[in-house]
Amino acid sequence: MAPRKIIIDTDPGQDDAFALLFALGAPHELEVLGVTTVGGNVPLARTTRNALQLTELAGRADLPVFAGCPRPMLKRLQTAEYVHGESGIDGCTLPAPSRPARDEHAVNWMVRTIMDAPEGEITVCTLGPMTNLGMAMVMEPRIIPRLREVVLMGGGYFQGGNATPAAEFNIWVDPQAASVVFDSGAPVTMASIDCTWTAMMTPAWVRSLGALKSASAEALIGMAEFYMSYGSHKFDTPDRPIHDACVPGYLLVPEAFAFRQCSVVIETRSPETEGMTVVDWWHSTGRARNCKVLGKVDAPRFFDRMYRAFATLP
Amino acid sequence: MAPRKIIIDTDPGQDDAFALLFALGAPHELEVLGVTTVGGNVPLARTTRNALQLTELAGRADLPVFAGCPRPMLKRLQTAEYVHGESGIDGCTLPAPSRPARDEHAVNWMVRTIMDAPEGEITVCTLGPMTNLGMAMVMEPRIIPRLREVVLMGGGYFQGGNATPAAEFNIWVDPQAASVVFDSGAPVTMASIDCTWTAMMTPAWVRSLGALKSASAEALIGMAEFYMSYGSHKFDTPDRPIHDACVPGYLLVPEAFAFRQCSVVIETRSPETEGMTVVDWWHSTGRARNCKVLGKVDAPRFFDRMYRAFATLP
Amino acid sequence: MAPRKIIIDTDPGQDDAFALLFALGAPHELEVLGVTTVGGNVPLARTTRNALQLTELAGRADLPVFAGCPRPMLKRLQTAEYVHGESGIDGCTLPAPSRPARDEHAVNWMVRTIMDAPEGEITVCTLGPMTNLGMAMVMEPRIIPRLREVVLMGGGYFQGGNATPAAEFNIWVDPQAASVVFDSGAPVTMASIDCTWTAMMTPAWVRSLGALKSASAEALIGMAEFYMSYGSHKFDTPDRPIHDACVPGYLLVPEAFAFRQCSVVIETRSPETEGMTVVDWWHSTGRARNCKVLGKVDAPRFFDRMYRAFATLP
Amino acid sequence: MAPRKIIIDTDPGQDDAFALLFALGAPHELEVLGVTTVGGNVPLARTTRNALQLTELAGRADLPVFAGCPRPMLKRLQTAEYVHGESGIDGCTLPAPSRPARDEHAVNWMVRTIMDAPEGEITVCTLGPMTNLGMAMVMEPRIIPRLREVVLMGGGYFQGGNATPAAEFNIWVDPQAASVVFDSGAPVTMASIDCTWTAMMTPAWVRSLGALKSASAEALIGMAEFYMSYGSHKFDTPDRPIHDACVPGYLLVPEAFAFRQCSVVIETRSPETEGMTVVDWWHSTGRARNCKVLGKVDAPRFFDRMYRAFATLP
Repeated sequence: MAPRKIIIDTDPGQDDAFALLFALGAPHELEVLGVTTVGGNVPLARTTRNALQLTELAGRADLPVFAGCPRPMLKRLQTAEYVHGESGIDGCTLPAPSRPARDEHAVNWMVRTIMDAPEGEITVCTLGPMTNLGMAMVMEPRIIPRLREVVLMGGGYFQGGNATPAAEFNIWVDPQAASVVFDSGAPVTMASIDCTWTAMMTPAWVRSLGALKSASAEALIGMAEFYMSYGSHKFDTPDRPIHDACVPGYLLVPEAFAFRQCSVVIETRSPETEGMTVVDWWHSTGRARNCKVLGKVDAPRFFDRMYRAFATLP
Repeated sequence: MAPRKIIIDTDPGQDDAFALLFALGAPHELEVLGVTTVGGNVPLARTTRNALQLTELAGRADLPVFAGCPRPMLKRLQTAEYVHGESGIDGCTLPAPSRPARDEHAVNWMVRTIMDAPEGEITVCTLGPMTNLGMAMVMEPRIIPRLREVVLMGGGYFQGGNATPAAEFNIWVDPQAASVVFDSGAPVTMASIDCTWTAMMTPAWVRSLGALKSASAEALIGMAEFYMSYGSHKFDTPDRPIHDACVPGYLLVPEAFAFRQCSVVIETRSPETEGMTVVDWWHSTGRARNCKVLGKVDAPRFFDRMYRAFATLP
Repeated sequence: MAPRKIIIDTDPGQDDAFALLFALGAPHELEVLGVTTVGGNVPLARTTRNALQLTELAGRADLPVFAGCPRPMLKRLQTAEYVHGESGIDGCTLPAPSRPARDEHAVNWMVRTIMDAPEGEITVCTLGPMTNLGMAMVMEPRIIPRLREVVLMGGGYFQGGNATPAAEFNIWVDPQAASVVFDSGAPVTMASIDCTWTAMMTPAWVRSLGALKSASAEALIGMAEFYMSYGSHKFDTPDRPIHDACVPGYLLVPEAFAFRQCSVVIETRSPETEGMTVVDWWHSTGRARNCKVLGKVDAPRFFDRMYRAFATLP
Repeated sequence: MAPRKIIIDTDPGQDDAFALLFALGAPHELEVLGVTTVGGNVPLARTTRNALQLTELAGRADLPVFAGCPRPMLKRLQTAEYVHGESGIDGCTLPAPSRPARDEHAVNWMVRTIMDAPEGEITVCTLGPMTNLGMAMVMEPRIIPRLREVVLMGGGYFQGGNATPAAEFNIWVDPQAASVVFDSGAPVTMASIDCTWTAMMTPAWVRSLGALKSASAEALIGMAEFYMSYGSHKFDTPDRPIHDACVPGYLLVPEAFAFRQCSVVIETRSPETEGMTVVDWWHSTGRARNCKVLGKVDAPRFFDRMYRAFATLP
């Protein structure tokens, strides 16, 4: 079977780095057509540089990287250096990228690529604020029925939020973009923090990457160590959720994820709850079930698959 | 030690009935000063009649009942006959009340009683929409520092809502009243559906009440059977949460309840999320922790204490 | 014809003082049953004291004054000492009141009075935030069909707002109470700032009151001088709108007021526009026309009638 | 002096047609770089076709037309065929366009053109929903400090709204896009309905265009007759405001327009008031004055200048 064609839209972020290398380490199953970047965890200039460096770390200097929107659709950008460090991928030292991002704007490349591909072929994976995909859907709504699936890291249900009491960071940064996507009619699969909090990365597993003796493994270990130092006010273990990696994880081992098909609406009106993914778990509203809400992951399977992907990388 | 003086504000409701009889069956620990009623599960005329009947069922025709507000502070009243039946306490047949409700409005009696009592003496327990207490705080804010505690059934955190995807029924019916109370500065303890869903009443326990061979036990069994027939779309067991009974349960066996002190804000602006209890579980906002959010209850202890209370009733 | 029975709900305020004395100076047309007070222009303790003093200034120490709600239904109270001075009626010096306010809460007295009167008899005039009437309608909705009319000073249409860009002060202070009243079904007449800005009081007219050589005229002149010193950033004349006086003005010379029957909704959701009176001037929504929106007043007739009223006072 | 370089972003609409031909008839003062279209009065396919036809009517088949966004940034598109007819420019019959719109998306062309021009050179005129400019500012915020001015038809202050009680049509259709632009820091000039309602086009003036004996005059007369048949529920004269023409009018005879520099915020949260231009007329918020709010126009000068522009067209 031909590998599944995906676009990775990302704001690296250490957990974006894990997701990106996870996907690039499974070339028989996933064909990454390009990487698009967005302002999110850190500003756009950094996420773009990080994407260039990380693809090169994976030996994929051939992969085109497109810089996208530096700001959300309506709100001012809020970043999260308090989690990810100034660079976004603190914890590793990577060579300066050997190539620049492409000239084309990520939104335009996304529209063009989806319009040129056969209907139902392309899956867009968003690992950060959904600005680029939301903008693409407004500029050219004809991409919507052409998408195979949108798979995103973001939102929450039982876990509420991590950016505010009600909202998860990626959705909270750009609720309007998320609303456009969730409301678009495209099939949406959401790896919310209810899912990602069951994908707890342990220090032991991180250490086990050392056996790979590769540059990429070394960088991943360094990033993990930095990334896992945050969160001690929430977790009473040293384990940490490796959020974004759940997106390629779901594409590669979907059967490892519990899920429920629900109506999900993005809250955009209230200052108190904006960016909340309002999940109709009990179908009390009778609204169409527009989202596959991922739940508990079979962590051993998930981490095992990720390990095997990393093992293929230089 | 003198029993704790409480006002029970209620909209019976079968689970209100369990709560009321639970409290009345523990006279050495709780002194119920009066029962106030509100429109909620069913309209005010019915909740008032039900309160009169239920206090008489408990042998307490002496207890004053005061009818309160027939409608929420801002919204139109929405009731829940689809859960509770037309009467609100379908499942049992009780004699017509032998006495009427008092002439005084519940809000006025509540204000007067709290103002006349020593500071810090009175606890108000709300089992329905918080209209009466919210109105009392607006009419006479000086009651606020005189309250010992407000203990309420309502809201949710991990469980989201049961009336809408975001909101629990009691708070959703009158978000403005809830907002007044949560924002008042009075100590608030919330038995949300995260708590009450761990107080799962089993058919076996209900049957065990039959051994009491009392009129009240018979009525409770009948109400339980009706009440437990609802919810099969949510629960894959015949067990059901006996929401309101968690309020007297907490007063009588507080050590059986896990809890966390949090900031809780009531959402009043968005049509999508109004009535949500926005719980800052991770203290990410830095707001003052105005609410004791109850969590998992030790169900065997809770149901055992309730059984012993019911055993004292006629 | 018997005089029209009215309740005056007020937060004096110099313009409330003009309104109150205007009404009390027309006893053949208006029978003031009592004065109720609310926190608004200044806190409740001051508005109550002012109401007691002003009724005595009018020679009506017999008139009962009832203190009402010290705070709005949902929001915290915001006052306007920057307009009215610390006392609310700066500009005059009145003797301490010879009597206290009645013990009964204004809301209760209002409910009781309306319930005891024949249907359609009583008109409630609100000159400040509509808290008391809104609370009364929540406590006892059966008063609604018994009201003859609600006449209020508040809101705006063409003039937008004076407290915020979108909202007039009285409505902005308690939008929830206003919403209850406008949404109640009772006949509502609104003297918005579009109306009151055509009731421009001139220094010459104020001076003309000196001819009355009465204590009340002297006090009114003093208050007018203080009151008219505010507003120079808005008005390029020394004239000032005498807002609240439009309410008795409308009751006494209704034919002097242009008006339009419109749907009016009170905005309660947005931080930016809350307290706005959303007037459907063009009937574009098709909603029921629940409000008589007063427009331009025939100023000479209005001020002439007010002069004649003041001329009857001691 | 070199003519001022402008981009006209439009959703024709008969009044857009007047505006477009007004601008194209003043080539010594205004250099129209291109016309971009948006979904608004009618759907995008029609507004684009109309723009092609109207530029050809003006003898400007050389002028590039770029189709833009077919939908607003967040909301679903709402159109106004009840005003403009099915085609958007009902009332005239124009030949099919001789050329297609350009391949490039309007948003991209707008970004590219502004980035390539000297700083402070280009003025963007929006005659419809502000989607294209808002999108351009999100995709490439560096255009913002390069703009000379944004001049828009939209919003209202004293006149409230025409689409809803609170909102004017252009802003109401895409409040998010308007918010991006007003909040961008670019100099914004707003021809709101308070301004445009003073630009009342009379049947006599329309008839006077007949003297021009040109194809364009004939088409304008036909469109005017259709356009002026709407509005009889608002206006008690046959005159009608020629909204969009105020934008080129302001560029050509700015001294004919009264104005006030104010803070203007676009309301995006409340269902009741969304799309309202919240104008801080009295500077009560102290916010930065981000908008030149146009007021009364000197109608004779305005219509005279428009007549002379039309007189230059084929």
